[in-house]
Amino acid sequence: MTRYKLILEYDGRGLVGWQRQANGPSVQQALEDAVRKFCAESVTAFAAGRTDAGVHALGQTVHIDLAAEQPPVTVQKALNFHLKSAAIVVLAASVAPPGFHARFSATARHYRYRILNRSAPPTLDAGRVWHVPPRLNGRAMNRAAQRLVGRHDFTTFRSARCQAASPLKTLDSLRVTRRGDEIRVEARARSFLHSQVRALVGTLKLVGEGVWSEDDVAAALAARDRRTAGPTAPAAGLYLAAVEYAAAG
Amino acid sequence: MTRYKLILEYDGRGLVGWQRQANGPSVQQALEDAVRKFCAESVTAFAAGRTDAGVHALGQTVHIDLAAEQPPVTVQKALNFHLKSAAIVVLAASVAPPGFHARFSATARHYRYRILNRSAPPTLDAGRVWHVPPRLNGRAMNRAAQRLVGRHDFTTFRSARCQAASPLKTLDSLRVTRRGDEIRVEARARSFLHSQVRALVGTLKLVGEGVWSEDDVAAALAARDRRTAGPTAPAAGLYLAAVEYAAAG
Repeated sequence: MTRYKLILEYDGRGLVGWQRQANGPSVQQALEDAVRKFCAESVTAFAAGRTDAGVHALGQTVHIDLAAEQPPVTVQKALNFHLKSAAIVVLAASVAPPGFHARFSATARHYRYRILNRSAPPTLDAGRVWHVPPRLNGRAMNRAAQRLVGRHDFTTFRSARCQAASPLKTLDSLRVTRRGDEIRVEARARSFLHSQVRALVGTLKLVGEGVWSEDDVAAALAARDRRTAGPTAPAAGLYLAAVEYAAAG
Repeated sequence: MTRYKLILEYDGRGLVGWQRQANGPSVQQALEDAVRKFCAESVTAFAAGRTDAGVHALGQTVHIDLAAEQPPVTVQKALNFHLKSAAIVVLAASVAPPGFHARFSATARHYRYRILNRSAPPTLDAGRVWHVPPRLNGRAMNRAAQRLVGRHDFTTFRSARCQAASPLKTLDSLRVTRRGDEIRVEARARSFLHSQVRALVGTLKLVGEGVWSEDDVAAALAARDRRTAGPTAPAAGLYLAAVEYAAAG
């Protein structure tokens, strides 16, 4: 049995998310089906991030176990061939180091959130950004974001569907930058609660609009109450950008 | 009669190009239809660049004349409302200065060409890049590009459908840069021949692959013969990025 580490890119539009579900096409199912077509093996694929419906990936990381050892480049090319009709590709494949687990070995996850901040709706970026017409104050958003960095009880920014045992998480960094008409939020943590990034972004947007102050954000965090958070930002703007593993991974 | 200058962004997929045609939806027709719905006026829209089918725009510039004067922001918002079902938006609208003509007043046009240079096909960028799997030498492409800059007879890089009176054009700049897996070609000139940027990119790709030398590019230019150029690059990777006008424009 050989374990392969795969790095995936996908367009989340039209997908029900990472996890296999009865109500539509998932990344997991597409990948497992591609493995079956390639080498007639039935595998279970494990991912670093269980992205929701509509969420994109630039560097989702996955592992699969194959009975027959194959050169990684063969695995990559064969899977891409069989994934052709899906908006999912394998960017890189390698033999995983001993004990590697895509989900449990991850030491950090990077998420990116893109807000298109202009009057005109997106054309080329439709389905891939959150369109927010009123001008946002990116600097104020970034200052407020620093109040959220560190180890906290993130109950306020946790979805009702979150299955994590504890709401305690360490947010390593949360940066808001503007490039022209685009506001980008970059978040890094060992792990996140369900919908945490989208809840954080929805709250920071209120700061960008001048509706909330930095202190309001700090107070919402301290309240440990979901009802105090801003509205959750839509899935379309969210990207699982990269996953980090310890040196051996 | 008031002349408005409009800056447009559009996704070229599914469009037959700028110009009104019988065989499918064009930007010109969509825009003229939107004007009719907005203010019941029948206008002819003029554009700086007559982009081909599948070519995108980040900053196409257009003018229209309206009998009833309206605040530019009203024109922009009304047109965007009526363009809703098309992947076309008005990024900005302003009252044009006296004598302004979107096509004839333009002093420079900027085109961008995006090559996705990696093994895996595009997902998020499908239809918006040229996918070239073998590794390209971007520096060699950039060096060869410099042999094309300046005033030349560009017959070699002109499509058979080109209607320009003369093949003499001045290419102000042509730069090739790499950002990770993406090779970008940026071209600037007062005006271009039909398919000139795509023909230049198709030829530079041969240099990037090591098939052609810099001297081969210079020789092809000097030959003034369409048969000596490399294959024309596909429309999907091309963007009309911006149009410049003299200070008053």
